[in-house]
Amino acid sequence: MPSFLKPNLLAMRGYTPGEQPQVGEVIKLNTNENPYPPSPQVIEAIKAALTGDRLRKYPDPLGLRFRETAGRVLGVPPECILIGNGSDEVLTLITRAIVPEGGLVAAPMPSYLLYRTLAEQQGARCAEFPFRNWRVHPEDVPAGAHLTFIPNPNSPTGTWMDPNALLEWPTPLVIDEAYVDFTAGHALSLLQKSERILITRTLSKSYSLAGMRFGFALGRADVIEQLYKLKDSYNCDVLSQAAATAAMEDQAYMRARVQQILATRDRMERELAALGFQLLPSQANFVWCQRHDRSVQPIYQFLKERGILVRYMNYAGYGEGLRISVGLEEHIDRLFEELRRLV
Amino acid sequence: MPSFLKPNLLAMRGYTPGEQPQVGEVIKLNTNENPYPPSPQVIEAIKAALTGDRLRKYPDPLGLRFRETAGRVLGVPPECILIGNGSDEVLTLITRAIVPEGGLVAAPMPSYLLYRTLAEQQGARCAEFPFRNWRVHPEDVPAGAHLTFIPNPNSPTGTWMDPNALLEWPTPLVIDEAYVDFTAGHALSLLQKSERILITRTLSKSYSLAGMRFGFALGRADVIEQLYKLKDSYNCDVLSQAAATAAMEDQAYMRARVQQILATRDRMERELAALGFQLLPSQANFVWCQRHDRSVQPIYQFLKERGILVRYMNYAGYGEGLRISVGLEEHIDRLFEELRRLV
Repeated sequence: MPSFLKPNLLAMRGYTPGEQPQVGEVIKLNTNENPYPPSPQVIEAIKAALTGDRLRKYPDPLGLRFRETAGRVLGVPPECILIGNGSDEVLTLITRAIVPEGGLVAAPMPSYLLYRTLAEQQGARCAEFPFRNWRVHPEDVPAGAHLTFIPNPNSPTGTWMDPNALLEWPTPLVIDEAYVDFTAGHALSLLQKSERILITRTLSKSYSLAGMRFGFALGRADVIEQLYKLKDSYNCDVLSQAAATAAMEDQAYMRARVQQILATRDRMERELAALGFQLLPSQANFVWCQRHDRSVQPIYQFLKERGILVRYMNYAGYGEGLRISVGLEEHIDRLFEELRRLV
Repeated sequence: MPSFLKPNLLAMRGYTPGEQPQVGEVIKLNTNENPYPPSPQVIEAIKAALTGDRLRKYPDPLGLRFRETAGRVLGVPPECILIGNGSDEVLTLITRAIVPEGGLVAAPMPSYLLYRTLAEQQGARCAEFPFRNWRVHPEDVPAGAHLTFIPNPNSPTGTWMDPNALLEWPTPLVIDEAYVDFTAGHALSLLQKSERILITRTLSKSYSLAGMRFGFALGRADVIEQLYKLKDSYNCDVLSQAAATAAMEDQAYMRARVQQILATRDRMERELAALGFQLLPSQANFVWCQRHDRSVQPIYQFLKERGILVRYMNYAGYGEGLRISVGLEEHIDRLFEELRRLV
């Protein structure tokens, strides 16, 4: 082991992202991508920016056009928006801004596995606390935590809670709203009430731009200003800024795709329940299904062998399940065709 | 000031990137962009990847195609290559992997101002040591440094030194080869001889892709493997990976543009010297010019008012100068037209 690297890095295992096969025909229901392509306006915006002169020059380090557009759409001042190379980068930056080496990050369990990785990358620990009735409770937060991550809606469960309950949270708080467009509420009104709350968003899910890497954080202007000092100057490239701005402009397209996804999600929930899976009612673009009568790992493997990728997850102290992204109707037809052979 | 943010962040000033005007007609000679567009094959590769299906799905987290291509071109195994969202990100990752909070980063002075920012972002200090005869000397490195950054060729001076002199460097070492394609030598052969040496490269300069954000690090495979644990899973988007791979494939195009740049650089050096500027012979795509008879800041200002941006820099303990990027011949014509009015 290269001994000049920091011990926390050598000791950590690293985050294992969902499988991203680069070749072959696979029905991909494992990483909550949007099954629909992005708005045609996004493709047009990228084409318009795709000139030799734009590519050879550095992009706007501040992302002003995106921030003005997103600010108008969301009703938030542009100064309250931090642009990021995916919401992963935004989560990394917030961790680095708040959590010291040897510090403590808190996150509910089961939730997004990346939070533990972010803590370990920072030389900090991650302490998990349980959901109760699929809500989080301030009294459950481990003492001494420097930062809490709460995904809302949550992954893998798809559950959602009223964010007003989070206003008096005992630590600085990130509300990770990666899946917010698939549910009815959001936490934006909390930003004016607490400087210690940050909200993260992504263009990867509802806007169909996982391949372009664009996310952002929302927070009080004086906090966002500090975070700009921590990011790489040119963290968002010229084409991703153009794409994200165009995607945000075309709310009607995004809303229409979300409606299709919600209809397919309803169908998946009905049919999975009929096949004997236990489900939590989802507020996201995936469903979380478990079984009490058998392990679901062989089901994951069976589907994979037939070209259908879903996400198998197993949480110590909670249990295992399959997280299945909402896909195109024809892909869900195939999913159930195979599942019916099995269960 | 938001007191839940770390003191090092609140205390630091943040890096000031070169001006990137987003509107208006400006002759941009301030941030060492390539004045020529990228290879037509790059544009074609981006267009080929620009499908709704590619944009909606996550990119390859490992960047295998780029690594295979770059590995073949450079004669390095793909396992020895870390992909990054610009070499800025790669420099950030290396700093986070090696330098503890309260640690010490070393860099020669004058060199790339970002190194100090990277240290401060990490809660570490930066100690500068002088060049002597535009070379660095191991005995000059401050005691206790965890990491040294050495740009070669150096910015802002454009000077280059034989990297073999760096093999026995007393600390882990990053040789920042952002400008390497504009000179004759490189440090790749050192990688087999020392696990403590990392080399960083960028597609922003010789490959004309500053807008796309792609850079990489080269190092021993076991070190690179550890750094992959620290990066965001999907740090390079699908279009930037396609662009960088195509750019690396078209070495002939890059070499031809470099030859044009070197010819223009020769002209700039001659004409600037004739106008009374003191120059160091440049091995990069810019020239560093100083004057002993007057301040150069009014010259920067004069040029800016006439739509020509160059970089004014002032190093405490060293002095001030103008760093002027090599531009198109017609832009350099304009530069000298204005300079001749002034000096």
